Amino acid sequence: MYDPSPRTLEILPRLQAFMRQHVYPAERAYEAQLNAGPSRWVQPAIMEELKAKARAEGLWNLFMADPEFGPGLGNFEYAPLCEVMGRSPIAPETFNCSAPDVGNMEVLARYGSKTQQERWLKPLLEGRIRSIFAMTEPDVASSDATNIATRILRDGGNYVIDGRKWRSSNACHPHAGFAIVMGKTDPAAAKHKQQSMAIVPLDAPGVSLMRHLPVFGFDHAPYGHGEMLFRAVRVPAENLILGEGRGFEIAQGRLGLGRIHHCMRLIGLAERMLEAMLRRVRARVAFGRPLAERDTIRADIANSRCEIEQARLLVLHTARLIDRLGNKDARRQIAMIKIVVPNMAQRVIDRAIQAHGGAGMTGDFGRPHALAEARYLRIGDGPDEVHREAIAKLELKRALDPA
Amino acid sequence: MYDPSPRTLEILPRLQAFMRQHVYPAERAYEAQLNAGPSRWVQPAIMEELKAKARAEGLWNLFMADPEFGPGLGNFEYAPLCEVMGRSPIAPETFNCSAPDVGNMEVLARYGSKTQQERWLKPLLEGRIRSIFAMTEPDVASSDATNIATRILRDGGNYVIDGRKWRSSNACHPHAGFAIVMGKTDPAAAKHKQQSMAIVPLDAPGVSLMRHLPVFGFDHAPYGHGEMLFRAVRVPAENLILGEGRGFEIAQGRLGLGRIHHCMRLIGLAERMLEAMLRRVRARVAFGRPLAERDTIRADIANSRCEIEQARLLVLHTARLIDRLGNKDARRQIAMIKIVVPNMAQRVIDRAIQAHGGAGMTGDFGRPHALAEARYLRIGDGPDEVHREAIAKLELKRALDPA
Amino acid sequence: MYDPSPRTLEILPRLQAFMRQHVYPAERAYEAQLNAGPSRWVQPAIMEELKAKARAEGLWNLFMADPEFGPGLGNFEYAPLCEVMGRSPIAPETFNCSAPDVGNMEVLARYGSKTQQERWLKPLLEGRIRSIFAMTEPDVASSDATNIATRILRDGGNYVIDGRKWRSSNACHPHAGFAIVMGKTDPAAAKHKQQSMAIVPLDAPGVSLMRHLPVFGFDHAPYGHGEMLFRAVRVPAENLILGEGRGFEIAQGRLGLGRIHHCMRLIGLAERMLEAMLRRVRARVAFGRPLAERDTIRADIANSRCEIEQARLLVLHTARLIDRLGNKDARRQIAMIKIVVPNMAQRVIDRAIQAHGGAGMTGDFGRPHALAEARYLRIGDGPDEVHREAIAKLELKRALDPA
Amino acid sequence: MYDPSPRTLEILPRLQAFMRQHVYPAERAYEAQLNAGPSRWVQPAIMEELKAKARAEGLWNLFMADPEFGPGLGNFEYAPLCEVMGRSPIAPETFNCSAPDVGNMEVLARYGSKTQQERWLKPLLEGRIRSIFAMTEPDVASSDATNIATRILRDGGNYVIDGRKWRSSNACHPHAGFAIVMGKTDPAAAKHKQQSMAIVPLDAPGVSLMRHLPVFGFDHAPYGHGEMLFRAVRVPAENLILGEGRGFEIAQGRLGLGRIHHCMRLIGLAERMLEAMLRRVRARVAFGRPLAERDTIRADIANSRCEIEQARLLVLHTARLIDRLGNKDARRQIAMIKIVVPNMAQRVIDRAIQAHGGAGMTGDFGRPHALAEARYLRIGDGPDEVHREAIAKLELKRALDPA
Repeated sequence: MYDPSPRTLEILPRLQAFMRQHVYPAERAYEAQLNAGPSRWVQPAIMEELKAKARAEGLWNLFMADPEFGPGLGNFEYAPLCEVMGRSPIAPETFNCSAPDVGNMEVLARYGSKTQQERWLKPLLEGRIRSIFAMTEPDVASSDATNIATRILRDGGNYVIDGRKWRSSNACHPHAGFAIVMGKTDPAAAKHKQQSMAIVPLDAPGVSLMRHLPVFGFDHAPYGHGEMLFRAVRVPAENLILGEGRGFEIAQGRLGLGRIHHCMRLIGLAERMLEAMLRRVRARVAFGRPLAERDTIRADIANSRCEIEQARLLVLHTARLIDRLGNKDARRQIAMIKIVVPNMAQRVIDRAIQAHGGAGMTGDFGRPHALAEARYLRIGDGPDEVHREAIAKLELKRALDPA
Repeated sequence: MYDPSPRTLEILPRLQAFMRQHVYPAERAYEAQLNAGPSRWVQPAIMEELKAKARAEGLWNLFMADPEFGPGLGNFEYAPLCEVMGRSPIAPETFNCSAPDVGNMEVLARYGSKTQQERWLKPLLEGRIRSIFAMTEPDVASSDATNIATRILRDGGNYVIDGRKWRSSNACHPHAGFAIVMGKTDPAAAKHKQQSMAIVPLDAPGVSLMRHLPVFGFDHAPYGHGEMLFRAVRVPAENLILGEGRGFEIAQGRLGLGRIHHCMRLIGLAERMLEAMLRRVRARVAFGRPLAERDTIRADIANSRCEIEQARLLVLHTARLIDRLGNKDARRQIAMIKIVVPNMAQRVIDRAIQAHGGAGMTGDFGRPHALAEARYLRIGDGPDEVHREAIAKLELKRALDPA
Repeated sequence: MYDPSPRTLEILPRLQAFMRQHVYPAERAYEAQLNAGPSRWVQPAIMEELKAKARAEGLWNLFMADPEFGPGLGNFEYAPLCEVMGRSPIAPETFNCSAPDVGNMEVLARYGSKTQQERWLKPLLEGRIRSIFAMTEPDVASSDATNIATRILRDGGNYVIDGRKWRSSNACHPHAGFAIVMGKTDPAAAKHKQQSMAIVPLDAPGVSLMRHLPVFGFDHAPYGHGEMLFRAVRVPAENLILGEGRGFEIAQGRLGLGRIHHCMRLIGLAERMLEAMLRRVRARVAFGRPLAERDTIRADIANSRCEIEQARLLVLHTARLIDRLGNKDARRQIAMIKIVVPNMAQRVIDRAIQAHGGAGMTGDFGRPHALAEARYLRIGDGPDEVHREAIAKLELKRALDPA
Repeated sequence: MYDPSPRTLEILPRLQAFMRQHVYPAERAYEAQLNAGPSRWVQPAIMEELKAKARAEGLWNLFMADPEFGPGLGNFEYAPLCEVMGRSPIAPETFNCSAPDVGNMEVLARYGSKTQQERWLKPLLEGRIRSIFAMTEPDVASSDATNIATRILRDGGNYVIDGRKWRSSNACHPHAGFAIVMGKTDPAAAKHKQQSMAIVPLDAPGVSLMRHLPVFGFDHAPYGHGEMLFRAVRVPAENLILGEGRGFEIAQGRLGLGRIHHCMRLIGLAERMLEAMLRRVRARVAFGRPLAERDTIRADIANSRCEIEQARLLVLHTARLIDRLGNKDARRQIAMIKIVVPNMAQRVIDRAIQAHGGAGMTGDFGRPHALAEARYLRIGDGPDEVHREAIAKLELKRALDPA
């Protein structure tokens, strides 16, 4: 039993209470507001109300590890809080802890210049704008970063950006303000020195949203995932983060965090799905018996509990390692959670769906959405295969005890 | 190797050629037309063109086993044709072989009066209208037919229908003409004599579509699945099929066919997904090698091939048993395919998605849609659990050889 | 439903009756006789009695496809009979249909000279001796036949054999008479022309049994698997089968048959294990209920039934293909059954063991032995991986329909 | 990352060094000595040498939590040490930490009278005798303790014991001195007050070993598992532990510890099997490539690593909970590890076997033995099903957050 830190113990019950009082009850209203308008690409009013309340109660930017910009919790301290936020699809934005903004804020806090922080980080921290992380490209296997085709070329006091990006989250968000774009400044440099990252305001000429990409049937309104075109987009040279050739380095740091946050949230989601299943099977009668009396259902519950518990311990363990050793030395564990957690969540949610019968596959916000989320994360931020390969490589290098 | 019948051998290549020439190329246009209009609940024009062509070539109502109304193929003869239709989401309607119309046509051909056939079967056979099978209810575990709450009460020369149904396919189809509604005429009768089936025109007063139900995020426009309310709906007594108390009997016959058709189509779908995977991995390069050279990908392909092949043989075997012995004596096999095929398809499609990376989870008609289809059929027409129970019961009754 | 041939229909009930009257009841006596003596490497007397009875009833050499030497049944005709023999570990030898003798008899019937047939095939067909097929070697991955290190060198009118072989079944059998040894006659020849096969009497100078190899803890007495040394063993040139460079070709034919026979037997074994499970769960009460009333047990039964049924259909299908097209054109299917059947059997037997609790893991002849058999066959005659690779290769070569 | 205690950090490297210097190198000698004699039921001399060395280095009775009798390590402190011992089948006895003696020593230390401790605990602690825990019975589902049929009846100053026990470990050990026997003193008492435990010397009249029980083909010489008959066996009343009706209570405490020790050892075993696999695939070439370059092998390695890591964290977490809250409040976690760890080990070892090909299934002490061990523990100390049920029960009782 890992002992949570005193700060976590102080914040956690307040967060849980907020979820019960404000977030869960708002889910239906949020969905209704989304469906009521002429378009689903509008921020539901209730989200801004939730954000205001959360900020007022100090449940805001909890992810931010840098005490200059937020509460300064470590990964291990944040993990139980992030898990709770993962229980509702509307919670992360409520607490200003949603992807990919969290990662962008971390990048700007850690690597951004003062000017960049003032101009782009501040409104993000205040929840006034949303942002995009434009890395993945449609035409190449971009889990291999050396494949990136987008170009960021110096031209006097500017950089000129050309490329196509896709699966860019927040691309359709009405509040989206800028994108951090990964591209090559020097394709002739060493393999991991070719890439750079530039801040690109969405209203810059040449930036266009080509199309919206549904994910497993879901549009994820009002933020959505998009395919974006950057055609001869000019940004001032000061918009480059950290300097030329530092893109890969920034991405590595960012992805580690992104992955562990995704995993924390998925654990919360799986936990909630299991609770929904418990509720359902206690109430539902078929062929003369409550479903809760079926041994197969009971075995599903026990297996889900075993799998969630193990995954959570691995995530907590990894969070601690990151805090102590940094992303790099925890890369084996980060790869492990990235495989383990989405697969676990896919199984747990699939069982919950099955226990719900016909009611399990319907609805926008419920189980099908959760399943799509889990399934998505077996591909997003690197497919299972890439992470398995990373682990195998490290294992095969080990020095071994005598047989 | 089962030898297909001469009739299957004659029709199959014509059907495949039609798919290649007309159906596959029309998929994008169909989707575009669906998205182009102000509403997605409109029949795309290209579907009516496809239907006309298919009918002209005699590739029409191939499912119809009764030679009075169609080609008169048995299940075993129809299976390879149905599989081919399952390869495209727009194929079944093209050939007038889509669910739940197929089941309704079978019911009317087998059990309908001459008047019912003239009035309701004929336009269905001609593809002029679509129809609904309203059996499942939202508030009860309707995989247990004795739970059905809808009432069909005699009142002079009419029946009066009251109840709620959901997951009724075609409920939103612009061409939908009538529903076959299952309800209880006599709740005091023996367990399987309580139910009857009535034909209910959708324009009858008291019929309303409460809401559309997405399935795993998909709207299935332009037909969709709906929740329907029947409030004091009056239909003439002659609309009752086969007479009072025959509903369960009709349902049993209908479901057997429905299940095997679903399975045949899913095999076609899985086969197509595997082909898409083969195409993808031959073309896609990551980390310096085509995906096709990865052993894990190759193992996935081999496993998919093994699973499809076994599922297909079991379906063919079952089709033959139904033809020879009837639904009832083939119920063990029908239960088996209903478990085996959707689970197989879910795995095969999941692998194909993984091999496609980011491209695997996007799009309306592709892999995510296929995955939802397979997952849906682990619940629709009876969840896995109900079919497993049916098999276990029969196994446990067996007389056994000496140990 | 494949219709069995009239000959199968005639033999099958006689075989089943023989199993019930003679084989099943003899299992305990066989085991007792094995344990009673000073050594387990002695043929139990009851086996010779069983063989005499089986031969008297014409249930003998049923595998033999060549009418000159046996009943001349095709693979498809033999399959249901072979499955029945697989139900008992003492059945195959009872009917003179045990591996590796069956394969050796096939080889000698098909490729042997008249002299070889008279000298070696005849006593095998009469059950007077047993034989060995010495192909696999301890030091190399011999699933890759080009790795074989054993040498068979011409020296005047003789061949001289040098090499080590292991996992040679029957190596410890008290009746073992000769081995067919695979080795290279010409390492410089084309890849699949280097190998030849020679008949080596076990009493030839230079042949020695190095050690007995248990398989997953079982000694498989009285036949066993052994590691054999061939040191400068001389045999007359006429002992070479079919001529120099034909070894690979013979092995291919032999392995195809060996694999399908193994699969047929494993299906019978899985079927018997399922029956044992049915018997057990009907009788056993725990926590106040017969195990048969547990849904998890019922789900296990249903899943086992589904898996056995599919595997059997695939084997029958493959048998038919071999009969019609030959081993080579059925190689995709042979690879499939070689993966599917042992994995299926491993799962089915594992479930049966679990249902037996403590009683499931004890005993020499029962479930643990069956589990070891199934597990063994995921490696023996080529590991799963090799067969998956073969299937993937063929799949990736296919011409595909348009997407 | 759980921080091990300073005492663990002090002992662990010494234990690992001892394993490398003495234990691993002794495995073959141990096996050879076992096979060399006229019987396998003799203690190999090398074991007594190992014990003497271990004791001399203070690596002795490390399990003993009571500082009066041993080092007084908690479960959490002992876990990493126990894991290391699990790496070799001869290690636990070397360090006097083998089952079921460990459990018996705990019972006597915690619940035994001074006389009992002097007479029975002392020689066990010194490694001079071995002992048996006789609880499971052949005729009933003894995972349900109320089924126990053995009787322990008061008769003046004695108790008289009648019953059959089986799967009693150490039953064949040449050094076995006594058994702790569970039986009913009062079948009419409340459900969990009926049972008592008595110490029964093996030389008492009426005690007999009926037969040896192999486990998945292994004899586990020289200790073995046996079926024992207790026929009118008389022991002095002072041999009852803790008093009448306390048997269930003692068993609960004992089983909790037994389970977690088994799990710790299995993790060590799985870890060693993974290491053997790493060694093998780096060395073995097939079809022109080292196995280590195969993606399927690499995926197997990565999956094994993920599963071992999660299982270990769950065990450590459970060990800590037991230390803090006691067995009872940790029963949910104990149930979890008892499901998770043996299933994990079965998969990890199965993969290691597959990677070894033919060499993976042979031998007495290697992989097959490890596989049998893991498989055994899915049944021993309560089958998976019983533990799943325990978890489900607790989950279904939970109060839940609002949906």
